[in-house]
Amino acid sequence: MTAHPPQRRLLICFISLLFSAIALADTGASKNVILIIGDGFDDQHVTMGRNYLAGMSGMLTLDKLPFRGAVQVETFSAAGQPVYVADSANTATAIATGAITSIGRVGTDIQDRDLPTIAEQAIASGLRVGLVTTSSITDATPASFLTHVSSRSCEGPEEILGSTYYGVPQPTCPQDALQNNGPGSIIEQLAVSGAHVLFGGGEKFLGQITARGESVRSLAERHGLRVLTEPGELENLRIDQAVMGLFDSENLEVRWRGTDGRRAALTETSWLHQLSDYLGEAKEPELMACEPNPEFEATPELAFMTHTALRRLSTNNPQGFFLMVESASIDKQSHKRNPCGSIGEVAQLEEALALSLEFARQHSNTLIIVTADHAQSAQILPEPSHYSEYPIPIYSPGHTARLRTREGSVMRINYATNNGFSEEHTGANVPLFANRTDQKLLTPFLRQRDLHDVIAAFLFDEGASGPVKD
Amino acid sequence: MTAHPPQRRLLICFISLLFSAIALADTGASKNVILIIGDGFDDQHVTMGRNYLAGMSGMLTLDKLPFRGAVQVETFSAAGQPVYVADSANTATAIATGAITSIGRVGTDIQDRDLPTIAEQAIASGLRVGLVTTSSITDATPASFLTHVSSRSCEGPEEILGSTYYGVPQPTCPQDALQNNGPGSIIEQLAVSGAHVLFGGGEKFLGQITARGESVRSLAERHGLRVLTEPGELENLRIDQAVMGLFDSENLEVRWRGTDGRRAALTETSWLHQLSDYLGEAKEPELMACEPNPEFEATPELAFMTHTALRRLSTNNPQGFFLMVESASIDKQSHKRNPCGSIGEVAQLEEALALSLEFARQHSNTLIIVTADHAQSAQILPEPSHYSEYPIPIYSPGHTARLRTREGSVMRINYATNNGFSEEHTGANVPLFANRTDQKLLTPFLRQRDLHDVIAAFLFDEGASGPVKD
Repeated sequence: MTAHPPQRRLLICFISLLFSAIALADTGASKNVILIIGDGFDDQHVTMGRNYLAGMSGMLTLDKLPFRGAVQVETFSAAGQPVYVADSANTATAIATGAITSIGRVGTDIQDRDLPTIAEQAIASGLRVGLVTTSSITDATPASFLTHVSSRSCEGPEEILGSTYYGVPQPTCPQDALQNNGPGSIIEQLAVSGAHVLFGGGEKFLGQITARGESVRSLAERHGLRVLTEPGELENLRIDQAVMGLFDSENLEVRWRGTDGRRAALTETSWLHQLSDYLGEAKEPELMACEPNPEFEATPELAFMTHTALRRLSTNNPQGFFLMVESASIDKQSHKRNPCGSIGEVAQLEEALALSLEFARQHSNTLIIVTADHAQSAQILPEPSHYSEYPIPIYSPGHTARLRTREGSVMRINYATNNGFSEEHTGANVPLFANRTDQKLLTPFLRQRDLHDVIAAFLFDEGASGPVKD
Repeated sequence: MTAHPPQRRLLICFISLLFSAIALADTGASKNVILIIGDGFDDQHVTMGRNYLAGMSGMLTLDKLPFRGAVQVETFSAAGQPVYVADSANTATAIATGAITSIGRVGTDIQDRDLPTIAEQAIASGLRVGLVTTSSITDATPASFLTHVSSRSCEGPEEILGSTYYGVPQPTCPQDALQNNGPGSIIEQLAVSGAHVLFGGGEKFLGQITARGESVRSLAERHGLRVLTEPGELENLRIDQAVMGLFDSENLEVRWRGTDGRRAALTETSWLHQLSDYLGEAKEPELMACEPNPEFEATPELAFMTHTALRRLSTNNPQGFFLMVESASIDKQSHKRNPCGSIGEVAQLEEALALSLEFARQHSNTLIIVTADHAQSAQILPEPSHYSEYPIPIYSPGHTARLRTREGSVMRINYATNNGFSEEHTGANVPLFANRTDQKLLTPFLRQRDLHDVIAAFLFDEGASGPVKD
């Protein structure tokens, strides 16, 4: 079909206007970093996501990024000795501060000294800062970018002096408590941090009362944050108003679950097998598929929170921003042996990444980094076992899920890092993806603490908006 | 200290001669590819190697390479359906031929059609070809570069019509047998392949008799290969003579073992724990370290075989070469739950890589790729468990080894993919490292079959020494 000349002129005019608008939006001066963390998102989990969402021969959005590297995770014992498996507190602290610390520590080193974070440096330099997560906003990953406590368990004024987890007393942070002239719990520090956007779960902390007798909600509002708990409330808010949106009591619900809520399960063996490893039968769990989690319905999607954060951080802001976006439950669902739970959260990460890439196309001074904080327990195993022709019962001693994929094959996922109620993290180096290849500090192999320097170099070294980093 | 003028002149003269010699050696026209495959060398195994050999904050030689990417492993079922965990036969076939095939297949597709390999294309184009491995030369990885059979078990004329493994009958390849006008078993096809260097194990095949009544040794010699079984015999051989060196009966011994030969073991639990998951005690295996394996003593090192192969492939050869170097027992030792066995073979791979990089510095038209064929079972777990403060016995249901590292920490390695005599492969994408960033097909994300195209483009598309690839 040939366009008539007047229509064509209109089309050309429209395209010109569009490009002018994009050019106008891209001030050029401001620099933005979007750091997307998939918690526990190691190469097994990346591949689980790829196989399910894109197929064995397909590509995820992150597979199309022009840069890929690997990141070595580093942890210290309390005595400063190398430790080979991390948690989300010490890893996020490494990324945020450029320093190695010990398990459970948030923005503090092994001597309990506060470590300045990249997000604090951004705020001090006049940039806006946003933290978006599918966990409670007080969880270790977001907390490590803007707060400093000796233990991740010190989430609110009620927890800082004592809490339990599955009945076990958790570490306290008396030296950090307000009543001891400390900076307060994680939620208290977030409330006064100067962050522009805080989205996630953790509504339950809003009603807790600080040692000065006010609610956390009131503390946050007094420091300029509009506090809300329903996504719809955002519509009535000025677009550049600082905001704390906590959309669930603790962590947000996840998008997917296994058929009828099933997770990985132990293999059933016959009574004869109890007598000898070579006898009897092993019955692996039935096939399952991924289905929508009914509890997710009212939950804001990570893409919605990311999109909203990007608008609020970039509108009327000539100074640039630092945004951390976390898909937290890739990890949390692997702890629970729920492969569909994890894969649905990979899908959420992919959507947040696609939105971020679209933003970067319109704002060229944007660095997007996707990485994981540590490796996790899930492994993809052969279906059937490569030893299935042997006349003995062959099965994993851990928990197994057999997932029917969209392309009609079966992906077997295994969890066997411990016998208890929750799987363990693992110690492999983690992947890193980026949208740019022009950053000289972004080399194919990095230590996790180097990420701090990559982000600082991009935001501060070459721009006019911040101090030159030592 | 100041050099006297005559000494300085001599020094300058010597340096000039040295550089001239290097320039002479680097003809510029010939192109060389060194493909180093770590069997089962996924990111958990890379990190195990890094932590033990270089320390938590150290770097392996491969970490210093300027390019890193990830490779998705693809496998078909016999019916052409996606399969998510591979074996070394179908993966090496994908790399060698650019095609996806099914488990156990060597150089053949799922319809049993022979697939042309990159090594055969190299020989046809006048390049030299070498295969170096620490496994039997007939094992799946080397075999897939120069032979075509329907099953990896058809290693020799005695096996092609029937063999057993742990008492279980293995697939046969009657259509490939010489007596049925096929090309013969793997060792028979290697013997007549036109390869210039074949180094590994598999001496036991030399005495097998082909269907035409001659020994495999005689067949190889009749096709121009000098056959030897002791590394010392290489000294008396013309430097550019084609050679088959098989230095052990089957696979080569490995360099390291655990203290007193110990491997990972099951955790012992008290009788009370048999009554309830919440009661009793769990006793994890004692610490171990890595020590020299006494059985390795007479075994040629991978670095020695690689160095010898590079000299023999490059001397008096204006046409370039393709060399595949495999550290095979990273995988084989993980099947056996022997972390020191695997780590020692990572050390061997590192040494072969260092030699290859030195060669590439003197021969600039050399592409070095390091990758794995598939992921494997080992995982690094927290030591102690992240749940050790809970008052119940917490342990992995699989086999555990607790390794004292050189920097004085403990690295806990877990194997829990099955209950049988051998662990399973796993399905994560695998890492890839390269010494060059100038290859446009070498993108951060590849499917395994794309590696064939990367190598073909380097060897044939841009040089004068081979045909242009379609």
